[in-house]
Amino acid sequence: MNGAQALIRTLIACGVDTCFSNPGTSEMHFVAALDHEPGMRGVLCLFEGVATGAADGYGRMAGRPAATLLHLGPGLANGLANLHNAHRAGTPLLNIVGDHATHHKRYDAPLESDIDSLARPVSSWIRRSARSADVGADAADAVAAARRAPGGVATLILPADVSWSAGGEPAAPPVIRRPAPVPDDVVRSAAKVLRSGEPCLLLLGGSALSRAGLDAASRIAAGTGARVLGETFPARLARGAGLPALDRLAYLAEFATAQLAGTRQLILAGTRAPVSFFAYPGQASSLVPGDGQVHQLAGPGDDVPAALAALAALAAPEARAVPQPAQRPALPGSAGGAAAEEALTAENAAAVIGALLPEGAIVSDEANTSGLWLPAATAGAPPHDWLTLTGGAIGQGLPVATGAAAACPDRPVLALEADGSAMYTISSLWTHAREGLDVTTVIFSNRAYAILNLELQRVGAVGPGAGAGAGTGVGAGNGSEAGAGPAARSLLDLSRPDIDFTALAAGMGVPASRASTTGEFAGQLRRALAEPGPHLIEAIVPPVA
Amino acid sequence: MNGAQALIRTLIACGVDTCFSNPGTSEMHFVAALDHEPGMRGVLCLFEGVATGAADGYGRMAGRPAATLLHLGPGLANGLANLHNAHRAGTPLLNIVGDHATHHKRYDAPLESDIDSLARPVSSWIRRSARSADVGADAADAVAAARRAPGGVATLILPADVSWSAGGEPAAPPVIRRPAPVPDDVVRSAAKVLRSGEPCLLLLGGSALSRAGLDAASRIAAGTGARVLGETFPARLARGAGLPALDRLAYLAEFATAQLAGTRQLILAGTRAPVSFFAYPGQASSLVPGDGQVHQLAGPGDDVPAALAALAALAAPEARAVPQPAQRPALPGSAGGAAAEEALTAENAAAVIGALLPEGAIVSDEANTSGLWLPAATAGAPPHDWLTLTGGAIGQGLPVATGAAAACPDRPVLALEADGSAMYTISSLWTHAREGLDVTTVIFSNRAYAILNLELQRVGAVGPGAGAGAGTGVGAGNGSEAGAGPAARSLLDLSRPDIDFTALAAGMGVPASRASTTGEFAGQLRRALAEPGPHLIEAIVPPVA
Repeated sequence: MNGAQALIRTLIACGVDTCFSNPGTSEMHFVAALDHEPGMRGVLCLFEGVATGAADGYGRMAGRPAATLLHLGPGLANGLANLHNAHRAGTPLLNIVGDHATHHKRYDAPLESDIDSLARPVSSWIRRSARSADVGADAADAVAAARRAPGGVATLILPADVSWSAGGEPAAPPVIRRPAPVPDDVVRSAAKVLRSGEPCLLLLGGSALSRAGLDAASRIAAGTGARVLGETFPARLARGAGLPALDRLAYLAEFATAQLAGTRQLILAGTRAPVSFFAYPGQASSLVPGDGQVHQLAGPGDDVPAALAALAALAAPEARAVPQPAQRPALPGSAGGAAAEEALTAENAAAVIGALLPEGAIVSDEANTSGLWLPAATAGAPPHDWLTLTGGAIGQGLPVATGAAAACPDRPVLALEADGSAMYTISSLWTHAREGLDVTTVIFSNRAYAILNLELQRVGAVGPGAGAGAGTGVGAGNGSEAGAGPAARSLLDLSRPDIDFTALAAGMGVPASRASTTGEFAGQLRRALAEPGPHLIEAIVPPVA
Repeated sequence: MNGAQALIRTLIACGVDTCFSNPGTSEMHFVAALDHEPGMRGVLCLFEGVATGAADGYGRMAGRPAATLLHLGPGLANGLANLHNAHRAGTPLLNIVGDHATHHKRYDAPLESDIDSLARPVSSWIRRSARSADVGADAADAVAAARRAPGGVATLILPADVSWSAGGEPAAPPVIRRPAPVPDDVVRSAAKVLRSGEPCLLLLGGSALSRAGLDAASRIAAGTGARVLGETFPARLARGAGLPALDRLAYLAEFATAQLAGTRQLILAGTRAPVSFFAYPGQASSLVPGDGQVHQLAGPGDDVPAALAALAALAAPEARAVPQPAQRPALPGSAGGAAAEEALTAENAAAVIGALLPEGAIVSDEANTSGLWLPAATAGAPPHDWLTLTGGAIGQGLPVATGAAAACPDRPVLALEADGSAMYTISSLWTHAREGLDVTTVIFSNRAYAILNLELQRVGAVGPGAGAGAGTGVGAGNGSEAGAGPAARSLLDLSRPDIDFTALAAGMGVPASRASTTGEFAGQLRRALAEPGPHLIEAIVPPVA
């Protein structure tokens, strides 16, 4: 058996049965081997960023890795942005990168590049298989690395001759080590903090955002009076009616600062001390209040729900979790709802989504500014999972939906996507069609990089603050006080021409429609959710910012 | 003045007046500064791979760098594949990557990553500006590095606080050093080789593919009997009626080997010794015939045309260059042409292109397998420039056309693009529309990664050769002898669903049509070339391979 076959057999034995692929010549033996290994599903993506983002979405939902199959350094490069997001999410992901044959490297052929240097920033583990006889064991090690809590991107570099040469030996699945329990004294110390009488806040992230983690945190809050917040951008958040509701830390530093004001004791469970997403002139990077103390109950690699349960047992033994009641916004045209003919806005679109979100839905949320009202509007919908943009590299939402749908074929997937972000990985739609994935994509088409219009002001580059702050001073009389000029505005604007997302979707085989009123949006969303397979709705909304 | 303004003023003074941009929050001061520096044109791209590919196309045609503006590590990552191509092309390119403020780095915010590690494989120069006072001088150094012969990717990392802080000082343009002449003894030695009586071949690349280089090489061939070939994938090749015709080394190693067979003396001018693009089981990587000797007249960083002229003066003082006569294929429906109602194929599409190619056209060629007949069909067309896929990272053609059109607004640009490759950077079309670029895009829609169907056989993964070669042996009776099975074929197939490129183009504001016959294609291409602004033609062709 050749190396490629040994690799695939090992992966299947390890529970890795889906490979999001964009192969090239150096991966042809892997591709050919798929016909002899029916346990592996190859999913073609037309761009590597779709493949890596899909593997991220798959890993978040399945709790075990999917593989990618990428072509040399440039193929990896195209997949890096979504690997960055997966790396930040702690997603288990097996990133397979084909390379030139070992004897061909020194000839510096046109596609030669330093794959290790490219992979390092996004990988928790990297190895280059040296021989066909090793590749099975290398793959098992890679799966073990990918599954090491909380999960990570394991990059396996696969030279073409290692694939094609004989002598491959499949390896047995590795033993996946569960994290050791958080030590009792750490739990006791946190319990003491909760009893200190000082304002306490429990900040949850990672696996704390599962039902078990949320239940324990809710008990702690109920029993001790501590506040609970979730991290800003969770990889996966369980929510909806019957689960404890959770507010998340705001993206904008000034709002996050307000949320954290007054906190004296900050207990971290599955996340790190909060920092500002970006730096701003004259603003602190850390969001921890100046006189606050930080305690780490459990890090992202720990068994966070167990640590929270232990803390609840100690600090709030009698308390019970407080479930979110079932409640939905009213539909347009019904009592309490917007008029059906009302122009669509991000706010009333959120109400429609809250009114219609199906039970068990998986929401891939890259709505950005247009998503401001989504958490409140969907909080009391039937139980669902919410996946967010973990690493800030936009273009994640559609591929994550792709992978989530592949991992969970029985659950409806809703991709809530900003127009600007959608364009980075728009060919995800083709894979939705090819695979018949049950993904409903809503494009919030506000025809701007609206977040950047906001940030342009917030960093003090234009507007009343320009020239103040950290001595930015672009000088008087140059117009900077008056807001962005035409050159700057043009770089943040997505009109001229408007992008017609219904045409893009139709061009890739996804049925699509456009909604400009709340009634149109409600009707279209209801139909899309009711029918199997992919759909796209272009929701025409004004910018929020 | 802040750092961003000092940077832009320095760039303008250095002749860098176009910036292909996909900015984020950390680049907002750069964006704001554009309103005060009208000498800099900001061009918005919806994906970073479009920005970097456009800067590549711009640099190839302008001979001086355009800038990019990318957002942190993930933005750079999305641009890396086309930076790889630019790096391989020797294109002067100033790659500006915004970063977090220096004081914010240590907080490891979500978008933090190792930008240097990502940039290194594609950059000939990297620097991180440390202070606003330095950024002007850093930019001048970056321009000097980008323009160092033959040209390179200079990556300037720009922390947000370096942009926004006061104290920026514009720098004067650097002195661009021209390469020293190739030493006389090297030229004399090459002349001696040419007089050896052994079969000589002159392999041209880089700036040897300019009119001056081709003229000198043609004189050498005429005067000495040496053969001349061009490198497989030139960054820019001057060709057409009145220039010496040039055959290029074939992509497929077996054809290249045949072209080079019998060569005893191989003289390199502006390129390196030829190697196989990929490795194949049992095949050599070097394409130099076993008993051949290799001589380097001039490397890519030398003044190659001058070296060739010196060699011509010495070895062929009386000889004259042999110009390609003007000749075009017949148009469909005319005498000697295909019937207008004949089904379109890659071959007769090439004839139509040869018949209609306008004088001064810039051709961005990423037609891949569908481009097989293009060189012959266009050889005698009016003078034009031909830009190819230098680094093998597909998704280059549409962005390179974008940049070439921005650099040369008075010349028609023709992007000849394979359907699979087009999907990596399809949002180039939006920038064509936004900027009103005179780019005619032809998508060769054969609905397959046709090159990979070919490579699947050539690497011995399937077909009669499977199991032979370097011991690939997937074993008897597993179907590998019979060609690719359904799982493999599915990963190389772009149907299910077919991609409708006319819909994609319309969705991004580019007028589009579809051609299935030679007559339709001729009519549509004629109209598209006659009208200003962007157009797209989806050419439905069967796969070649």
